[in-house]
Amino acid sequence: MSARAKATLVLLGVVAVSLETLLAQGQKKNAIAFPKGYRHWTLVKSMVIFGNQHPLYDRFGGLHNVYVNDMGLPSLQQGKSYADGSVLVFDLYDISSGRGAIETRNRKFLAVMKKNAKLYAETGGWGFEVFKGYEEKGSLDNTKQCFDCHASQKRVDYVYSTYAP
Amino acid sequence: MSARAKATLVLLGVVAVSLETLLAQGQKKNAIAFPKGYRHWTLVKSMVIFGNQHPLYDRFGGLHNVYVNDMGLPSLQQGKSYADGSVLVFDLYDISSGRGAIETRNRKFLAVMKKNAKLYAETGGWGFEVFKGYEEKGSLDNTKQCFDCHASQKRVDYVYSTYAP
Repeated sequence: MSARAKATLVLLGVVAVSLETLLAQGQKKNAIAFPKGYRHWTLVKSMVIFGNQHPLYDRFGGLHNVYVNDMGLPSLQQGKSYADGSVLVFDLYDISSGRGAIETRNRKFLAVMKKNAKLYAETGGWGFEVFKGYEEKGSLDNTKQCFDCHASQKRVDYVYSTYAP
Repeated sequence: MSARAKATLVLLGVVAVSLETLLAQGQKKNAIAFPKGYRHWTLVKSMVIFGNQHPLYDRFGGLHNVYVNDMGLPSLQQGKSYADGSVLVFDLYDISSGRGAIETRNRKFLAVMKKNAKLYAETGGWGFEVFKGYEEKGSLDNTKQCFDCHASQKRVDYVYSTYAP
């Protein structure tokens, strides 16, 4: 093979790999969009995880609010299976504590679970996504870690939160 | 005066007093209704007041969420004066703390401030009401105590909360 042919092959290889990377980044399979307007959904509950005595402190330390969209609200209130299109949001904030109070600071991340029985059949019918800080582009690289934990909630269609009356 | 006339007078007096009491209870001046559906309004912020180092611990100890209706949202986000019909809700829950987490228990009370510049001219254009526990009937007997504290926030139309980004 000539030096020129070799160089062309190497170039083609580089282009192929770059294209693959671009496609993987741009066309994440069944991507979930940022849930714009979620602050106007129904608030499900609020909770603070402040210390490492809590098993989820490392991953979910801070103050979180959980929201549900209109589609998912009846199921959540009745503890039933969710219809496709139901979305839950877990909105986690950093906290500062002092003088007898805990206040929120910046958002740590916003996590979403969205129901589509066919699309996400491998993970109980739920798709998962995570938006770090104030990013509106998802960055979750492993859905399985979400589902593995939610799997214990199969009885209530994999949802942890219950509606605070 | 005959015994009969005396008895009639006493009876009339009793009826008059009873009527007055009934009217006072039934027709609270400019009463504010329970804000049904507020959990579907926009969440403004969440905060925990857990210790008596905080000056508001006695009155507002617990976890509270503040909500604003659609009418009031732009003003709140811009720190401007509110249009008539704007409503803010302060929703306070008892908390339990343990194993590194704070969770909500029952509602302590829900407080409302509603803007109507003419109706509530004596208190900065805001009417106040408090619903204890899960009651949907207001029980605030002294609006002045609310306004006296909110008066310091005149610069932002008497509202304390700022929107958590």
